[in-house]
Amino acid sequence: MDAEIIAVGSELLTPHRNDTNSLFLTDRLNSLGIEVRLKTIVGDDAERLAAVFRAALERSKLIILMGGLGPTEDDINRQVVADVLGRPLQEVPEVLERIAARYARTGRRMPPNNARQALVPEGAEWLPNKKGTAPGIWIEHEGKTIIMLPGPPAELEAMFDEQCIPRLRNRVSGEVIRTRVIKVAGLPESEVDHRIAPIYKQYTNPVTTILSTGGAIEVHLRAHASTPEKAEALLNELTDKIEPALGDHVFSTRGESLEEVVGMYLVMKQKTLATAESCTGGLLSERITRVPGSSEYFRGGAVCYSNELKTLFAGVSPKLLEMYGAVSRPVAQAMAEGIRKRTGASVGIGITGIAGPGGGTEEKPVGMVFIAVADEHGTEVREFRFPGDRDRVRLLSSQFALEMLRRRLRN
Amino acid sequence: MDAEIIAVGSELLTPHRNDTNSLFLTDRLNSLGIEVRLKTIVGDDAERLAAVFRAALERSKLIILMGGLGPTEDDINRQVVADVLGRPLQEVPEVLERIAARYARTGRRMPPNNARQALVPEGAEWLPNKKGTAPGIWIEHEGKTIIMLPGPPAELEAMFDEQCIPRLRNRVSGEVIRTRVIKVAGLPESEVDHRIAPIYKQYTNPVTTILSTGGAIEVHLRAHASTPEKAEALLNELTDKIEPALGDHVFSTRGESLEEVVGMYLVMKQKTLATAESCTGGLLSERITRVPGSSEYFRGGAVCYSNELKTLFAGVSPKLLEMYGAVSRPVAQAMAEGIRKRTGASVGIGITGIAGPGGGTEEKPVGMVFIAVADEHGTEVREFRFPGDRDRVRLLSSQFALEMLRRRLRN
Repeated sequence: MDAEIIAVGSELLTPHRNDTNSLFLTDRLNSLGIEVRLKTIVGDDAERLAAVFRAALERSKLIILMGGLGPTEDDINRQVVADVLGRPLQEVPEVLERIAARYARTGRRMPPNNARQALVPEGAEWLPNKKGTAPGIWIEHEGKTIIMLPGPPAELEAMFDEQCIPRLRNRVSGEVIRTRVIKVAGLPESEVDHRIAPIYKQYTNPVTTILSTGGAIEVHLRAHASTPEKAEALLNELTDKIEPALGDHVFSTRGESLEEVVGMYLVMKQKTLATAESCTGGLLSERITRVPGSSEYFRGGAVCYSNELKTLFAGVSPKLLEMYGAVSRPVAQAMAEGIRKRTGASVGIGITGIAGPGGGTEEKPVGMVFIAVADEHGTEVREFRFPGDRDRVRLLSSQFALEMLRRRLRN
Repeated sequence: MDAEIIAVGSELLTPHRNDTNSLFLTDRLNSLGIEVRLKTIVGDDAERLAAVFRAALERSKLIILMGGLGPTEDDINRQVVADVLGRPLQEVPEVLERIAARYARTGRRMPPNNARQALVPEGAEWLPNKKGTAPGIWIEHEGKTIIMLPGPPAELEAMFDEQCIPRLRNRVSGEVIRTRVIKVAGLPESEVDHRIAPIYKQYTNPVTTILSTGGAIEVHLRAHASTPEKAEALLNELTDKIEPALGDHVFSTRGESLEEVVGMYLVMKQKTLATAESCTGGLLSERITRVPGSSEYFRGGAVCYSNELKTLFAGVSPKLLEMYGAVSRPVAQAMAEGIRKRTGASVGIGITGIAGPGGGTEEKPVGMVFIAVADEHGTEVREFRFPGDRDRVRLLSSQFALEMLRRRLRN
């Protein structure tokens, strides 16, 4: 069964508001094996809503409308749905009584326009609203199911879980959806696709999507099956084929972030870590410490934004800084080794580079970054040329530092 | 002129991803007086996309498609738009050269599937992409304008601002929309609303919305008028009434972030800054160094995640740590004073607290944070109890540290 979601409200078409209810609904629908195929966001505009609703009726079996059930003239959903389906609105006395009672309990009188909320299209069921006044509406129409839910998230969520999930469960054929995310570091998106497209294209189930997210590439797999076990088996089969093609660039298949994976290695190997950062300004240590319990292995770090602090905190010799400049291979190495020595950590990381927009030269352009990882076996230093703006250069620098650390810890 | 936005990508129909690009686009379109009337989110599904695009062509003058321009087979937008409009795809040699050159600059070879990105529907213009490989596409078709933009936000934003805004500005006339954002620190959302609702409710133009974003409260004003000058006058009138009600909690009315405002004060007063962070793990220095040019005033910082590092980098005496514990008023003070002295900065900040989820006790619960600001006049220490999870406690800690610094620098 395919679903389509229509979110109604002019505020959802401003630069400041986004529909987030649909994420909740998608999660719940997926758990029943129902895929969301389309989402539309439309303003409080009867003509446009009617067009969108008509198109939805033609292509989807389940249509969920959100919002537009309030007591004001802006709230057009009831009327539009009634008109498109040719089912006139009828007042339901029981609903009217409930709304009046709700007002009475809080010592207020029901404003007259609230009576609108007791109108329901002919032949429809109404759904009680425990957290507000507007009831939901459930309509079976020519083989389609139409659900109308109130917009406030607390009302929508309670109503959907209590009223809609049990009804929907009865009519889905027991299909479930399971997902898996394979996370990849150190390869560009096009290279990931080039390597795995010949594999995943042989499968229509699971469906594969590749996403680029803040330095990492994610391969999302989505399997349909009649039972959770069968869906997991499908995911396992494809994962087992994709993983070898990506080799040791895969750092997670269970949802962990790169900083969590690095943290697990550090705990496992009983090692400690310290960082000395220049162009990333603390982003690396901030990412490392996002992980609860990171104090177990992270001793701390220095943000050496000036030459003096590279010397003071990481013991980089002023001569070296003078000879090679702050953005150089020897300084990255000295930062990693210096912070390791000063803090007594088992592993030290040093990052120095030019994040931009200013500060670049022909010889040392914006995006040039040196990253060093030092441990008891020695120090590895790599030079990078990252594309993009200041934020991107900083993000990629922290990402590749974590990736270099992960590879060092694995061996 | 009315606009309609179509976001393409199966990942946008999962419970984990939302389209946020459309918020940026709506902001920019509004600034030109263009209203967004409808948004559709559709998967990588050629048939559904074609149906949505056809419906859009019937009702909207300006249609913006986002995503689906990558090098993989999932990326269907070019083909679908070409088919619906009856304009066959043609390879543009100049685009192909640019993509290959981009790869060459970073020392890689272009994977063969990237050649797809040089395909453009007949009669269309291509839009250069400064931040990525996929060019945008601009089509004039039977009185409609169709814009195709890449999905990654950095690419989309740069392309829209540089290539699309100037072209669109030439074809809109009449009404303009102008917005203003009043940013507030140190007050909860409900208190902001309580203070200013009696003022903004007297106005239907500008429209006022209050948003809570990452520690700061933002008051958004939106004015319609026949000229930019008239719209600005409307914004000025309401801003001049709202600002006094919020007093010195207002830190920006021109879009600056709190770290930018603090940076401007530091430059203006020729002061330098250093930080010593425990529970924030580098987030404060990371925020300070997001600002280009921050090396002018930020000397650096220490992330003292262990007691030893509080002593080593910020000179906190082991006795003090033993006597009061790492999360305490005296230790925050010693961190701020110690880092200031060690680095020779004019201002030092110290943060120590319990971000959770573990580590809390009855006496020192999760969310307890001490923040100290030290300068030549002395040291201010404040105790906070922040609500929320680890991320939220860390974010609010960095936010209030910046706000304490802002107030100190203003005086």
